[in-house]
Amino acid sequence: MREVVVIGVGMTPFGKFLDRSLKSLAAEAVQAAANDAGIGLRDLQAAFVGSAVAGLMTGQECIRGQVVLRAMGLGGIPVTNVENACATASTAFHGAWIAVAAGLYDVVLALGMEKLYHEDRQRSFAALAGAIDVEAEAASPGEAGQPQRSLFMDHYAGKAREHMRQYGTTREQIARVAVKNHTNARLNPYAQYRTPRTLEEVLSARIIADPLTLPMCSPLGDGAAAVILASGDFARRRGRATIRVAASVLRSGEDHGADEPGLVERAARAAYEMAGLGARDLDLVEVHDAAASAELIIYEDLGLCPKGDGGPFVDSGQTALGGKVPVNPGGGLLARGHPVGATGLAQIAEVVWQLRGEAGDRQVARARVGMTQNAGGVLRGEEAASCIHILAR
Amino acid sequence: MREVVVIGVGMTPFGKFLDRSLKSLAAEAVQAAANDAGIGLRDLQAAFVGSAVAGLMTGQECIRGQVVLRAMGLGGIPVTNVENACATASTAFHGAWIAVAAGLYDVVLALGMEKLYHEDRQRSFAALAGAIDVEAEAASPGEAGQPQRSLFMDHYAGKAREHMRQYGTTREQIARVAVKNHTNARLNPYAQYRTPRTLEEVLSARIIADPLTLPMCSPLGDGAAAVILASGDFARRRGRATIRVAASVLRSGEDHGADEPGLVERAARAAYEMAGLGARDLDLVEVHDAAASAELIIYEDLGLCPKGDGGPFVDSGQTALGGKVPVNPGGGLLARGHPVGATGLAQIAEVVWQLRGEAGDRQVARARVGMTQNAGGVLRGEEAASCIHILAR
Repeated sequence: MREVVVIGVGMTPFGKFLDRSLKSLAAEAVQAAANDAGIGLRDLQAAFVGSAVAGLMTGQECIRGQVVLRAMGLGGIPVTNVENACATASTAFHGAWIAVAAGLYDVVLALGMEKLYHEDRQRSFAALAGAIDVEAEAASPGEAGQPQRSLFMDHYAGKAREHMRQYGTTREQIARVAVKNHTNARLNPYAQYRTPRTLEEVLSARIIADPLTLPMCSPLGDGAAAVILASGDFARRRGRATIRVAASVLRSGEDHGADEPGLVERAARAAYEMAGLGARDLDLVEVHDAAASAELIIYEDLGLCPKGDGGPFVDSGQTALGGKVPVNPGGGLLARGHPVGATGLAQIAEVVWQLRGEAGDRQVARARVGMTQNAGGVLRGEEAASCIHILAR
Repeated sequence: MREVVVIGVGMTPFGKFLDRSLKSLAAEAVQAAANDAGIGLRDLQAAFVGSAVAGLMTGQECIRGQVVLRAMGLGGIPVTNVENACATASTAFHGAWIAVAAGLYDVVLALGMEKLYHEDRQRSFAALAGAIDVEAEAASPGEAGQPQRSLFMDHYAGKAREHMRQYGTTREQIARVAVKNHTNARLNPYAQYRTPRTLEEVLSARIIADPLTLPMCSPLGDGAAAVILASGDFARRRGRATIRVAASVLRSGEDHGADEPGLVERAARAAYEMAGLGARDLDLVEVHDAAASAELIIYEDLGLCPKGDGGPFVDSGQTALGGKVPVNPGGGLLARGHPVGATGLAQIAEVVWQLRGEAGDRQVARARVGMTQNAGGVLRGEEAASCIHILAR
């Protein structure tokens, strides 16, 4: 397989954009990525386009990629529309990576985009229910009652309570993740929430699903993110600064014993093996903090700290900016925001900016290797999909 | 890129299965393909799973592949959910082909499945509207009026009238495509409609969109189809009969002048070039006869006959079973049926059976090379996606 590099990244700010279309969001992200790569749209040879629930929200199913790319004058090229719930965007990146690695194309676009906000917020929550096994676990969105929140927060709250019981993790430690990520987002111009929050504010906020309060839960969001991948040869010919894709791993959940490694741990091991690197080599990590508690558990799954030590690890400050291995320097899903089908590529954009030294006030010093961990859906009590990337300069 | 072969195919009968779930349909197709390949489900290393409108019909969005595969005990592996309207299933095949060609996996599943029938038939037609640019061309399905038929038939009827005006194509010639495909389907145990129809019956049936009568339009359908791809090395080690993937091409529509080649023609040229073959090398073709008139135009786009000669070409009998290049020996979308996200893989299954000499009473004699042409969506008066495969023994 050929060497694959990232030559351009771009994204819209994440937020609530009731008046903007998928086309408008996508065009902004793609043009920014092309500008960043120093190429024209006509240089793109193929596209993998991800969107998770915009079909239910907008009625635009099936050919979303062609619709938004054609609107910006980009027709002709092969377009594969992909979906993997909250891991949709990194799945698009994974597809683009395979196509370049195979030698089929030299320059490929990965695009993630989402419209999740709706004037009727209950419709947004209902759409998210398509990311579980609807037959086994819920009525279809069309027939469901009126959910007051995403079903996912019940999942994450259950995992949080289990971790608290088993390892003595505290509400304060979970809150500290939210404080850290909101603090980081203050420095990220693309972030949805840029107001720092104190530990007290996070703890005293409205409870969504015990022990999770509102700032411990990722918000609804609209937005788009785009990444352009190329063969190493193409990038060298163009003389562009490049970031190497050292590992690209997609895995699905499977039945396993309580003592056996779970999905994220298995995916991480595969990624480390592919890259020939270990947890100690990571200079920064962007993880899927759909809930603040999830980030603590992911620390452990990725091997950043021993099993059960996620709470003390965040307390130690090692995952804060300036710490040993900053996690979610861009603000994470909690504060950068979580437009589902765009999130994984926003993670990759952040790591690329960090590795290039272009992250401004939130720059991680001397960053050479970064990881993104993106998860999607829920099946039988665990995420359905996990997609992990390791990038290096 | 590595040599890629097909080692197993399987499908459900296509039809109206209100009482069967996606899980049930998918399991039947995947198990049949695994049995055909002589492998166990555990040998599958990755899956590309396609479904076009089942999300709108069932509420199961995002992680459809994981949901159906996990239900049959197949967890863990990378699952990419893909969508490309009516070209969804061949896009799944294309993704699987790239992954094997890249050397990332040795054995990959491509699965297409659809639930399109609903007790409220208008809901089925509304769901199909997600395969156009809904912002530009229609209200969203949720807000649309009550369509009495698929919007696509208006598109195909317009193209048919244009062809009649420009080249003198007759209603009888269009009807003859329907007669041929229904005749072929009689010999296909997987087909949705196995009753032959006379020319008079086709012509006198209810008009859906002039000049198209009901039997000239592909029906709604439920079903699933699965194909297992492998590296040539893996197949040889296992000593399995294999069919080689000589070309796999995906293209999107783009703006072009009236005199310039359209989407299907461009995709076909690319496929011939990749395979090092031409139209005269084809022993059979499975085409996207969403409407009978489309098949006549596709003859021309694929180079089976000169531009404008589609009508006389079907009259000549050369595309019938026993003719020079049988087209849609399996019955086509018109009569085998068209469960949208499964169709492209049913086409590939048919070609594989034909190339192996396993097509029973509808066997094309001495078939060595076959093509599938699968189209999806509509944008600016042309299909949005076209996916062409050439298979050879």
